[in-house]
Amino acid sequence: MAKGNQLTSRSENYADWYNELVRKADLAENSEVRGCMVIKPWGYAIWERMQQTLDGMFKDTGHVNAYFPLFIPKSFLSKEADHVEGFAKECAVVTHYRLKNDPDGKGVVVDPDAKLEEELIVRPTSETIIWSTYKNWIQSYRDLPLLINQWANVVRWELRTRMFLRTAEFLWQEGHTAHATEKEAREEAMQMLHVYGDFAENTLGIPVIRGVKTESERFAGALDTYTIEALMQDGKALQCGTSHFLGQNFAKAFDVTFANKDNKQEHVWATSWGVSTRLMGALIMTHSDDSGLILPPVLATIQVVFVPIYRKDEERQMVLEKCDELAKALKSAGIRVKVDDDDTKKPGWKFNEWELKGVPVRIAIGPRDLANGKMEVAYRHSQSKEVVDLPENIVDVIQPKLNEIQKAMYAKALKHRQDNTHKIDSWEQFQEALKANVPGFLSAHWDGTPDTEAKIQELTKATIRCIPLDNEQEDGVDMLTGKPSKQRVLFAKAY
Amino acid sequence: MAKGNQLTSRSENYADWYNELVRKADLAENSEVRGCMVIKPWGYAIWERMQQTLDGMFKDTGHVNAYFPLFIPKSFLSKEADHVEGFAKECAVVTHYRLKNDPDGKGVVVDPDAKLEEELIVRPTSETIIWSTYKNWIQSYRDLPLLINQWANVVRWELRTRMFLRTAEFLWQEGHTAHATEKEAREEAMQMLHVYGDFAENTLGIPVIRGVKTESERFAGALDTYTIEALMQDGKALQCGTSHFLGQNFAKAFDVTFANKDNKQEHVWATSWGVSTRLMGALIMTHSDDSGLILPPVLATIQVVFVPIYRKDEERQMVLEKCDELAKALKSAGIRVKVDDDDTKKPGWKFNEWELKGVPVRIAIGPRDLANGKMEVAYRHSQSKEVVDLPENIVDVIQPKLNEIQKAMYAKALKHRQDNTHKIDSWEQFQEALKANVPGFLSAHWDGTPDTEAKIQELTKATIRCIPLDNEQEDGVDMLTGKPSKQRVLFAKAY
Repeated sequence: MAKGNQLTSRSENYADWYNELVRKADLAENSEVRGCMVIKPWGYAIWERMQQTLDGMFKDTGHVNAYFPLFIPKSFLSKEADHVEGFAKECAVVTHYRLKNDPDGKGVVVDPDAKLEEELIVRPTSETIIWSTYKNWIQSYRDLPLLINQWANVVRWELRTRMFLRTAEFLWQEGHTAHATEKEAREEAMQMLHVYGDFAENTLGIPVIRGVKTESERFAGALDTYTIEALMQDGKALQCGTSHFLGQNFAKAFDVTFANKDNKQEHVWATSWGVSTRLMGALIMTHSDDSGLILPPVLATIQVVFVPIYRKDEERQMVLEKCDELAKALKSAGIRVKVDDDDTKKPGWKFNEWELKGVPVRIAIGPRDLANGKMEVAYRHSQSKEVVDLPENIVDVIQPKLNEIQKAMYAKALKHRQDNTHKIDSWEQFQEALKANVPGFLSAHWDGTPDTEAKIQELTKATIRCIPLDNEQEDGVDMLTGKPSKQRVLFAKAY
Repeated sequence: MAKGNQLTSRSENYADWYNELVRKADLAENSEVRGCMVIKPWGYAIWERMQQTLDGMFKDTGHVNAYFPLFIPKSFLSKEADHVEGFAKECAVVTHYRLKNDPDGKGVVVDPDAKLEEELIVRPTSETIIWSTYKNWIQSYRDLPLLINQWANVVRWELRTRMFLRTAEFLWQEGHTAHATEKEAREEAMQMLHVYGDFAENTLGIPVIRGVKTESERFAGALDTYTIEALMQDGKALQCGTSHFLGQNFAKAFDVTFANKDNKQEHVWATSWGVSTRLMGALIMTHSDDSGLILPPVLATIQVVFVPIYRKDEERQMVLEKCDELAKALKSAGIRVKVDDDDTKKPGWKFNEWELKGVPVRIAIGPRDLANGKMEVAYRHSQSKEVVDLPENIVDVIQPKLNEIQKAMYAKALKHRQDNTHKIDSWEQFQEALKANVPGFLSAHWDGTPDTEAKIQELTKATIRCIPLDNEQEDGVDMLTGKPSKQRVLFAKAY
């Protein structure tokens, strides 16, 4: 583990680099509750911007927000057969509703008289409680579609946790929609996949593959699970969001029917879709470097930071005045700016801090710069800097740069994925490729059976990430079994 | 209980009126989990606007958001003596972390092998987990102040619940700040009281009394609890938000010290402050009437709704065109508008629906109006309407009306409070006043002892809501004990 503000380099130990970056860039830290993290202010501000952007996209596509209970009666989880079979059983279980003062001394103990008749599960996902509610909300086709989203915390008792990527408690949104027809529900599931894809690419600057999961990787209870998959710098894939076509499974389990236009009762068609604080992990592992986080400008909570440089009071006043003037101009153009005028910290400390925290553009101005009519502009994504004339209109200089950075970051990530996506045509080649430093996406023929899929995973730990939506049809043979195949699928080691 | 969309009148049964309004205006409903509510889309949209406004006010006063774990180890609750003594013990307790398939049949059971070593409590409030975290964040005076807020769900296992006012799970924000000096912490607690007061008055249109709680009504662990108190239509008080000066209690319990400028270790000073979805209850019970909810324009998610009136298709097109044109003009001035062009509903149904949901202004336009160059404008707060000329610039007509409505709603609520605040000088008068239909705020002398306070509550169920901040000093005698008193305090029956 590296000391002070220095991070372990990615090449040295990628996992250490990640954990140190998360902690030192003030994104999150482990709490005293096993598997639960504290999301620190800098990390939470980034998550807030993700939320705001996504929330706007959900509302633009006709969705509204609501809030359903944190707790789910245990019996609800048993109602949908695939859901109970397939969903992980690692859940937080509430069994009692009262504490009492310890009769033998200090502190509190659980009151044994306050046992719940039926245990409550802290929601790991909300299909069951929501569909038991929808039953009362849906009578007629006029009540459909129901297009509802929830921002919430959920708990899955993961054994091996890692900040943002896999934690016992995490924050997410879960959309749950109800439709009169299969066609409409399928279109909704697909629409939300593209909302996620567009968000990942345009806001986070993360190129993603939009695809469909194989049967064995489907969400428990879904007929189809769509996914966006990204490739991290270390050549492992990260599932960034999923959208499920649930058919009539939950409607049947919770007896949710509606009168159609001919006044006949039909079961409702459903989708659900979600992204979580895991996106923070995707963001970090797509863009950051050995000096810390790199935020794409569209997402950055601070896009431009000014670091005034001075020794004497009169220098301070002059330099700060200029920084404030430039900052004000940027702000009035809607650019998010901070002037770091903290006197208890030195400029070098501040340079390091904002580099670690990923602010896209840093502008330093000292008395000599002022005298020469110059400023130093540093770009986080390229670790480059230039001294330029103090502009007439700073917005004209900075706004194009921010756009350029956003594009460059996406292009770099895309190139990384392209460079590390390989067509594989034999089992030997496949095994070899997985041993590489950056294993990447491996596009290979698969015979379409869950058995072969499981076998490949057992032998290599690689999984089928998805069958891309726009997949080329091509005759071939499964690399392991030699059985015929109609198309390649994307394998990778994954988080 | 009233039928269809009709509500029980307030005079008939205030509690029924409230419950029916909450349900029929699509604000919330009880869930299948005891004491937990489902916040429905219309209710949640109002809460979202409350959140946005408050969040902006918090940020303008230098606060940032973060997120701390849902769970608190049981032992943490025992660390601050007053907190453990004073805080209610009704909490949801997590004892297990896994389910398993029932070996005897269908469904799931709790896995007895998955018992937690230490039980986890679903947070009823987060002082303990947050101060155990702050310990690692605070070393020096340079780390202070720490001005952090959290938006979260909390659980208190209330026995008697009522939607928004008292539910097992509720949504809230909790600010937790750390300061180097007592003075600064006291100023923070007071500042946030005023943020709450201003928000209640300017956004919600609810006049509030800003005051300090008596010792027995303080938050468990606080040295001072400040409160904003409002008077509901039925003459009962509702506590709308509290801000606590916590002294060094939590810093001492969790050993949080800092090196001051002289490099000496001192304990940190603390505040905490919160408002919750209870504000939804305050909003409803301050402004609404027997026809449903009434939203103040500043808060309303839809400020103006257009209801086009037509029979034939050609009428529909003409009328809708005009509505859309006017709506567009309002939107571009930042006014929140909806054109209700749903063909499956009749105008009468829509009138009733938007009345129930509290939209401040409703504009109806039919073919005859169009021919005459008129529109019908209805105002929800006064249940009045007028036919006016179709204006050149609709913004010039509507914007002043919205401002006027906001003021009128506040003024009406203020008058209600003033009319129902009484100076009480004898015990007989006090008992008599509490028997009134609208008991109101009773301003009376109190001898300052918790014993007398408890006695009065026991005899009348009235409690001391607060000692107003700007309280006049006046010699008098306690109405029950006859002991000397320096000032009057505010009594009321309360929610």
